Amino acid sequence: MADDPELSCPLPFAGYDRVVLAHGGGGRLMHQLVRDVFLAAFGDPLQARGHDGAVVELGGRTALTTDAFTVRPLFFPGGDIGSLAVHGTVNDLAMCGARPLHLTASFILEEGLPLADLRRIVGSMAGAARQARVGIVTGDTKVVERGKGDGVFIAVTGVGRVESRHEIAAHRVRPGDALIVSGPVGDHGVAVMLAREDLAIECDVTSDSASVAPPVLALLDAGIDVHCLRDPTRGGLATVLCEIASAARLGVHVVEAAIPVRPGVADACELLGLDPLYIACEGRFVAFVAGEDAELALEVLRHTPGGEEARRIGHVRAEHPGVVVLEQPLGGERVLDMLTGEQLPRIC
Amino acid sequence: MADDPELSCPLPFAGYDRVVLAHGGGGRLMHQLVRDVFLAAFGDPLQARGHDGAVVELGGRTALTTDAFTVRPLFFPGGDIGSLAVHGTVNDLAMCGARPLHLTASFILEEGLPLADLRRIVGSMAGAARQARVGIVTGDTKVVERGKGDGVFIAVTGVGRVESRHEIAAHRVRPGDALIVSGPVGDHGVAVMLAREDLAIECDVTSDSASVAPPVLALLDAGIDVHCLRDPTRGGLATVLCEIASAARLGVHVVEAAIPVRPGVADACELLGLDPLYIACEGRFVAFVAGEDAELALEVLRHTPGGEEARRIGHVRAEHPGVVVLEQPLGGERVLDMLTGEQLPRIC
Repeated sequence: MADDPELSCPLPFAGYDRVVLAHGGGGRLMHQLVRDVFLAAFGDPLQARGHDGAVVELGGRTALTTDAFTVRPLFFPGGDIGSLAVHGTVNDLAMCGARPLHLTASFILEEGLPLADLRRIVGSMAGAARQARVGIVTGDTKVVERGKGDGVFIAVTGVGRVESRHEIAAHRVRPGDALIVSGPVGDHGVAVMLAREDLAIECDVTSDSASVAPPVLALLDAGIDVHCLRDPTRGGLATVLCEIASAARLGVHVVEAAIPVRPGVADACELLGLDPLYIACEGRFVAFVAGEDAELALEVLRHTPGGEEARRIGHVRAEHPGVVVLEQPLGGERVLDMLTGEQLPRIC
Repeated sequence: MADDPELSCPLPFAGYDRVVLAHGGGGRLMHQLVRDVFLAAFGDPLQARGHDGAVVELGGRTALTTDAFTVRPLFFPGGDIGSLAVHGTVNDLAMCGARPLHLTASFILEEGLPLADLRRIVGSMAGAARQARVGIVTGDTKVVERGKGDGVFIAVTGVGRVESRHEIAAHRVRPGDALIVSGPVGDHGVAVMLAREDLAIECDVTSDSASVAPPVLALLDAGIDVHCLRDPTRGGLATVLCEIASAARLGVHVVEAAIPVRPGVADACELLGLDPLYIACEGRFVAFVAGEDAELALEVLRHTPGGEEARRIGHVRAEHPGVVVLEQPLGGERVLDMLTGEQLPRIC
């Protein structure tokens, strides 16, 4: 966070209820915004006042990840762009087998954004960060003219300590590995889609936006050798399975009836002509573990918040390398392909 | 960088010469974009294929910094948003007394952006990163609808190893400290302003966008105890001096005639009614060192690329705490205040 000099100039912050260009200009108004909105919510964990950077102690294997968040609308059932930005970043760290430690946040604000909306978003980020036990240690704010942005975009970078003793990567997936999903899929994408003003479908769906670090770290703490982890965001479960099958040059066999999908999500997908296997989650992950570790992994997950609804949904085999085959309820099989077009733009 | 599975689907990338929404959708088109544009330019320094994160070895005091870049226009004399994003981030690390090591990059693309522009920007980023000896180790791409962005925004986070044995911060500034600026001020802001289509002023001004890590590290390598460093970006030299005077609760006395300003910058500022002391630089810094170290610091800077035009421009005193006084050429004095409004929107 930037500096916070004495603000002797009599410019009443209260006089602005919307973001103006000068809030990004580097002068008094920007300092006021940083102090009254960002520092008020995030605190200044490193006492880094007056610096455009933060200094932290790190040691050993460190995971780095970054994501820009452009979700539309900014607020949706189960979350908003602020909590989503924290969860999405923390989850990418967890997918590296890392314990999330620090986040940085860059905001691109559109002129005219109500300051009340910004406060709400920043408060939600701060709450999600507290819950995930990470500090938001440094940041930046830019303002673009009306019509050159869309309310607020947030780019978050995460730093974490790798806790897994073994590498977690697609090339470690082996034939016989079990495929586990940590909970029902598609909730986030459907919740966001239904929240868009042009859709008036009544389905009770809430985003699954949440940190998956606790269930992932629980697996590692239990000594389970996790071969590969991936969170099915854009492109959904089907796309990440295609990516892993392709990278591992192995076949993935998935049992459709085993994949948890909430009734509301299934209903909305049917109405909208969407396939839940291609819809983004923001609080789920898939894990590949040796077949003999599967039961223990499920046991651990089901006793950890965020993993209660974990299911084994398939396995890896040497046949059909690079191909994901879905076994259908009536016994047929179909090949799952990677998402080709744009099913749901701006869901994260 | 994301995964790069085999792309067997016959969707000719060449068929797209502009960014479409599906380039951000998580499916095949996004993988193609990542492979053909981002990985082609940045490489894959950590072999992190298939992960949304990178794992690096870090030890000890680590600097973290983040910035969003929204400069308009995307291309300007002396640089573009790509090289600027690398320099701006590397410079924030240098201001922490850190050696830049790794960058992450998040792109927010507007539907309709010519892919040729994106390639040029990404190529320029890659060149600036090579020159600064940092790797772009992980990234993200989002696409927003036409009219919801402005070509491309880039958020970059930097990670560096702190090389300074002493803390570098405003509270370490002491009465008697010399104030050094590493080169002429105002070039970047003026170059960007003149590049905007609505201005037809003929002045030969080029952005100073560059990494200041070499001159900063040269000071540290020479054993100089640098008390405070700051790069005068938004708000310019005057604003950062106000920030430091305020945070240190000391007075800063600056000699206007000693401040280097290029003739083209001075001319353009006169025509536009701007004060070069409030115009952003992107390749300069101010350093506070003990008075007795000033000559050595200048000697070191003048022999280091990026510091050849360094000048001593003032000193710190106990009187007038929190106030920056400018000594004018004809002997008068005036108080420099922090930038209040928005002088030049979107210069970085």
